[in-house]
Amino acid sequence: MYSQEIESLLKSKKIRIGDKVLIIRGKSEYAGILMPRIKLGDVSSLVIKLPNGYNIGIKHEKDMKIRRLEPGRPIRFKPAEAVQRKDPEKPTVSILGCGGTIASRVEYTTGAVYPAFSPADLLLSFPELADIANIKSRKLFDLLSEDMTPEHWKIIAQEVVKEIQSGVDGVVLMHGTDTLHYTAAALSFMLRDLPVPVVLVGAQRSSDRGSSDNLVNLVSATVVAAQSSIAEVVVCMHGSMSDDFCYLHQGTKVRKLHTSRRDAFQSVNVRPYAKIFYPDKKIEYLRNDYKVREKKTVKLDDKLNTNVALVYVYPGIKPEFIQSLRNFDGIVIAGTGLGHVPTNPMNDKFTQSLLPSLRNLIHSNIPVVIAPQTIYGRLDLDVYEAGRMLNEIGVIGDGCDWTPETALVKLMWVIGHTKEMGKVKEMMLTNYAGELGDRTV
Amino acid sequence: MYSQEIESLLKSKKIRIGDKVLIIRGKSEYAGILMPRIKLGDVSSLVIKLPNGYNIGIKHEKDMKIRRLEPGRPIRFKPAEAVQRKDPEKPTVSILGCGGTIASRVEYTTGAVYPAFSPADLLLSFPELADIANIKSRKLFDLLSEDMTPEHWKIIAQEVVKEIQSGVDGVVLMHGTDTLHYTAAALSFMLRDLPVPVVLVGAQRSSDRGSSDNLVNLVSATVVAAQSSIAEVVVCMHGSMSDDFCYLHQGTKVRKLHTSRRDAFQSVNVRPYAKIFYPDKKIEYLRNDYKVREKKTVKLDDKLNTNVALVYVYPGIKPEFIQSLRNFDGIVIAGTGLGHVPTNPMNDKFTQSLLPSLRNLIHSNIPVVIAPQTIYGRLDLDVYEAGRMLNEIGVIGDGCDWTPETALVKLMWVIGHTKEMGKVKEMMLTNYAGELGDRTV
Repeated sequence: MYSQEIESLLKSKKIRIGDKVLIIRGKSEYAGILMPRIKLGDVSSLVIKLPNGYNIGIKHEKDMKIRRLEPGRPIRFKPAEAVQRKDPEKPTVSILGCGGTIASRVEYTTGAVYPAFSPADLLLSFPELADIANIKSRKLFDLLSEDMTPEHWKIIAQEVVKEIQSGVDGVVLMHGTDTLHYTAAALSFMLRDLPVPVVLVGAQRSSDRGSSDNLVNLVSATVVAAQSSIAEVVVCMHGSMSDDFCYLHQGTKVRKLHTSRRDAFQSVNVRPYAKIFYPDKKIEYLRNDYKVREKKTVKLDDKLNTNVALVYVYPGIKPEFIQSLRNFDGIVIAGTGLGHVPTNPMNDKFTQSLLPSLRNLIHSNIPVVIAPQTIYGRLDLDVYEAGRMLNEIGVIGDGCDWTPETALVKLMWVIGHTKEMGKVKEMMLTNYAGELGDRTV
Repeated sequence: MYSQEIESLLKSKKIRIGDKVLIIRGKSEYAGILMPRIKLGDVSSLVIKLPNGYNIGIKHEKDMKIRRLEPGRPIRFKPAEAVQRKDPEKPTVSILGCGGTIASRVEYTTGAVYPAFSPADLLLSFPELADIANIKSRKLFDLLSEDMTPEHWKIIAQEVVKEIQSGVDGVVLMHGTDTLHYTAAALSFMLRDLPVPVVLVGAQRSSDRGSSDNLVNLVSATVVAAQSSIAEVVVCMHGSMSDDFCYLHQGTKVRKLHTSRRDAFQSVNVRPYAKIFYPDKKIEYLRNDYKVREKKTVKLDDKLNTNVALVYVYPGIKPEFIQSLRNFDGIVIAGTGLGHVPTNPMNDKFTQSLLPSLRNLIHSNIPVVIAPQTIYGRLDLDVYEAGRMLNEIGVIGDGCDWTPETALVKLMWVIGHTKEMGKVKEMMLTNYAGELGDRTV
């Protein structure tokens, strides 16, 4: 419910949730569908969904005017049974919901922002799914993906294992895009010996938006889960700004690289595994170095120590900042260039070397891992003095081509297993899930 | 000097610095030019320059063998006067040295890693420069660019002003690439009313490497300084992996996006200003929204408050980490997606909202600025709940398309001018140097 003031105003104008309205405030006009108040949102702001699909909040003020443009259309669902017929010839895919924009269609119809979804909802929204596979679906939680924590990664990993143990041919995870690549990396480490694909998918635009990517992404992800020969954690998202194909990215080698574009997700330092064509539902493999489907027993290895800091260095960064990290159990430094931090071999009077602080952390048994803030490319600590000095004090990462985000997630996983510094280094430099590429493209 | 042990070994084999040598250690062989010991480097590691142009250090151990492959060739320079003839028909360009790989040629000849360079050195190394302009040159300092601090930005800005006041037609800054984009952003804010171009240039590969980019980059940068109509701070670097052109990037809209590729620098959210073709030395303008050369007086506005933290958020980031930043005078948060941090509107039991800590910082008059960790794209705090909540507590940046690095440098500059929160916000949202694009490409 909105504030009493707003509710009275709406009542007096006979405007209902779902109606298309025009709001005039000062010199600004907003036309869109009147939405229910967002849970925990401001009671005195009207929420409308703009034609571009985004919701905006408009503070109710004295000079505000509102007028109905079109009445809303009531939407009804068929009962779930009507759309669920199991076809024994088809593979079975579990679709698990973890929140995010991709599930946003149901918002408007239920009046809540993050509702549950059932197989029926999904199949009504995306009837093509039924052609691809028998769909099982359930919601794990409703969460904005920026609110996702390592504890949620564990829940997802555990639930994926249950689904796989129940015999499905693949799992799709509907996930918000903000932190989708962190979750993909985490699951890549936590799910060992996968017999089937685990496909993360999201949407950059909500589904009532003309340019929404959720249909193409979800259908393509389901094709991958049902049919692909890749038994790894992968990310399936739009490959271009058109609706003709998705890329399938390796879970440890992908990053969100645009705030809003549909092709925001990009493989980093590797080619994508595959292209999934829409509407053909064909998979074109671009690499063949993936783990294949085979009969084996998935293992859950979800030990994490999440007390890890991620620090991007920058000019003027202070040693005290590094020193203040001594209560963490591990540090990832996103260094400049080939993996550098200020080391001041020239004894410049203005430069403050971070070496003594980093050395202190390492001497206190806090592993320090380096990653490139350039995002793309491979670390090389042997080219310049700064790198060699970092190597000498025992910073981990020389020669690695991981993103800062994958390095962070891997460090959480590794120090969940051991506190012994030598073992941490050994595990960090062991290639568990393709996170260490042989050759950077 | 290397350790006595190494010096004796070299003496016994009659090997001199500059000789091409083969070092065998265990199963590894390294062939390259024996370099002098790196200043402050490990005395018991031999440094050789590999055929790929990179220096590596090889620890001297008992089982190490060294053998001379070819004697070194002595290199002599002509005296400076021989190459400096002023042509009154040509424009004059100042080339100022700030260290970095681009100046690495001289390393070998002087036996030091970061030597001074003179116009004579430059013109002998790059004779094409004399065809473009009369060259003035001097070294400001020798610094690995990861050691660059905001104090060095001030020195550079002050020296650029002096050069412009002396009447040159353009200034080229030779700079290490690690933090070149931070310096470019800083100079964009500090140098007001530029009458001529100020061009930052670097090299990703040292000049004794076959694939070095320093010739093409430096010649192209000098063409821009001498001839281009753009009177702004710009970055001139390889545009592709071939040697056929450079891109000219706007100083506030460029980022190093690869550890090692020659085309590591990319314009973010805008097209580059221009392409500079090599060897034609032709400029093709790709935009026309730049400030043009005109007779005006450059103003130095180098007030900075550098006590600023840059924090990339990640799943599981703790409110205590944000609280620990209260001794900074400003904070840049690189948020996820459209500019989010954990806010937990769903009251999830695992999620820890950063909102209270951020609100506390803002209430303590510490401005908090948001930037996208996706690097590309524009912030929009009006789409989702998390964004609206950040807007409500007064986080600065809604609608901006700056990189985290440009936002950081701008905040240092803005809070160097005012501590008044309203004024900080107003200045942050004022477009001083093209850092706020109208439209994101």
